[in-house]
Amino acid sequence: MLEDKSPQLTPISKLGEFGLIKHLTAHFPVMQDSTKVAVGDDAAVIDAGSSKMVISTDMLAEGVHFNLGYVPLKHLGYKAVAVNISDIAAMNATPTQILVSVAVSNRFPVEALEEIYSGIALACNRYHVDLIGGDTTSSNAGLVMSITAIGLQDENKIVKRTGAQENDLLVVTGDLGGAYMGLQILEREHSVYLANPDMQPEMEGYDYILERQLKPEARTDIRKKLEELDILPTAMIDVSDGLASEILHLSDQSKVGFHLYEEKIPMDSTMISTAEELNLNPAMAALNGGEDYELLFTISPSDFDKIKNHPDFTVIGHATAESSGNYLVASGSNQLIPLTAQGWDAFLNGE
Amino acid sequence: MLEDKSPQLTPISKLGEFGLIKHLTAHFPVMQDSTKVAVGDDAAVIDAGSSKMVISTDMLAEGVHFNLGYVPLKHLGYKAVAVNISDIAAMNATPTQILVSVAVSNRFPVEALEEIYSGIALACNRYHVDLIGGDTTSSNAGLVMSITAIGLQDENKIVKRTGAQENDLLVVTGDLGGAYMGLQILEREHSVYLANPDMQPEMEGYDYILERQLKPEARTDIRKKLEELDILPTAMIDVSDGLASEILHLSDQSKVGFHLYEEKIPMDSTMISTAEELNLNPAMAALNGGEDYELLFTISPSDFDKIKNHPDFTVIGHATAESSGNYLVASGSNQLIPLTAQGWDAFLNGE
Repeated sequence: MLEDKSPQLTPISKLGEFGLIKHLTAHFPVMQDSTKVAVGDDAAVIDAGSSKMVISTDMLAEGVHFNLGYVPLKHLGYKAVAVNISDIAAMNATPTQILVSVAVSNRFPVEALEEIYSGIALACNRYHVDLIGGDTTSSNAGLVMSITAIGLQDENKIVKRTGAQENDLLVVTGDLGGAYMGLQILEREHSVYLANPDMQPEMEGYDYILERQLKPEARTDIRKKLEELDILPTAMIDVSDGLASEILHLSDQSKVGFHLYEEKIPMDSTMISTAEELNLNPAMAALNGGEDYELLFTISPSDFDKIKNHPDFTVIGHATAESSGNYLVASGSNQLIPLTAQGWDAFLNGE
Repeated sequence: MLEDKSPQLTPISKLGEFGLIKHLTAHFPVMQDSTKVAVGDDAAVIDAGSSKMVISTDMLAEGVHFNLGYVPLKHLGYKAVAVNISDIAAMNATPTQILVSVAVSNRFPVEALEEIYSGIALACNRYHVDLIGGDTTSSNAGLVMSITAIGLQDENKIVKRTGAQENDLLVVTGDLGGAYMGLQILEREHSVYLANPDMQPEMEGYDYILERQLKPEARTDIRKKLEELDILPTAMIDVSDGLASEILHLSDQSKVGFHLYEEKIPMDSTMISTAEELNLNPAMAALNGGEDYELLFTISPSDFDKIKNHPDFTVIGHATAESSGNYLVASGSNQLIPLTAQGWDAFLNGE
């Protein structure tokens, strides 16, 4: 679509900056009571009431975080929002508003931006967040998106990265490694396509991992589930860069060490079989793959009975003294392997 | 500096994404009571207390909003913050926090980012705002910055673009056109430099307009001054895209027309003499130049006595019925010239 020179596509310059943002944001309804002024003024106005406001921002760059060769623009819009909402969920807060800025080169027609915004709208609707502001501008290069997400929570229920205590249990939601394995399939099929555009991509049977990569969901359901179980995590983070990297963040900020049990890491069967097909180690995908957007948190050992056997949660390790360091306890051998952050790093993997 | 391959410069990949953001944000003190959690967690936490929170975001792209050939990186950082703070001031709110995201190609060393952040730090200190979050990532192309600014104000004191009434007076702070004229000088000297790198740039005597372009200030002083005069504007906007464009925004959102008197537009003497030197019309620079970051607002006619002869404010026109349209009343002839938005548009001027 982007390279299509067909005359029905609208150059962005036809609408101009103000026309464009008005056009793209015209059909975003206000869903949150706390949204007092949304798009269209110098700034949006938010009523925090008695809750505290939680706010996070992320930037996504073409060729670094996504490849438009195989990521549909609508999915890109959806994912950009979900990824930010995930940061709000990782604070144990309820997402309420987002602001979206997009820089695009003039090679993108208005219709391409409409696709992105249709994905953003879908995510807004899915997570009940209001679009309250943003900016669109041209760039000399590819597409860069910046999203700021806002959420609310009572001060005493906000969960930071800093509260884990020695002997706390380390818990993760869902399963890990799927998004990374989905990316491997997309990249494989994209290479095949580049070599021979007539070849049909072989995507069948990979639905779960492709969806994990292309349309990840923020775990906004977890806050309520934990509340129903009467559990307040002591520390929490979302798994954006890989399990190993996130554990090291919790360790660094809570001043504890961790033992992670390889055999406990939750993995999906499609992820495992695809890893085997591609001669990759599934545990490495879970540890270092990233982009799963599950929540990783610590709880008091006294909460164990409340959480055991719950389908959404897996206890994968525990906190130790900071001086003990961070280790993966290998399956079978019980060998202690030092955990290192080989997670996804835009500056190491990019360009 | 950017093209310098000298060995003391540090490639960004040496620090990695987490190392980089930690390194760049290590020396930003928390100054605002409302900042509960700043940089370093999934999200920042803000206490809005009984005030309402005002929030705005902007994106700046290399080659579109700035040219690193003549904009020092430190100034770029400062200006990016000031521009966003200006949006908060335009809501009659007090700026309190910012979030900054930067996408850069690997051709930038860490020291270049440090320069940008030193400008950001200077602006944070100048405006008493806390840096509470952000993201750094690589990009395949140039430099893109995204800033989100937050402010506080009581609900009944927030001034939107929508409240102007027929017969209200149109008032502007400071003077206009200087930033645009400063840009003309920078571009002229840059062309001379490109043609002959040994030539010394001729910047003397242009200090005021160069500073207007390179180091604009947000008018955060105006909120307090208006409060002291017991004036609450009926509508307000900041002059980022040019006076004409902003008047049309107020017109569109308040459903009124405006008469703007050319002879009343406040202009600085250096701006006027430079315009004459370059064979440009100074009034056109004020009308369409943009980037002055002054505040444009409407007040009830009954407030006129409070504001007349105040050195910070100039009454430049008045609101009419919406059906009357928007006109510039030309100096001398009193001819009515329809106002059109020829303001700065990233999609029309960019690339």
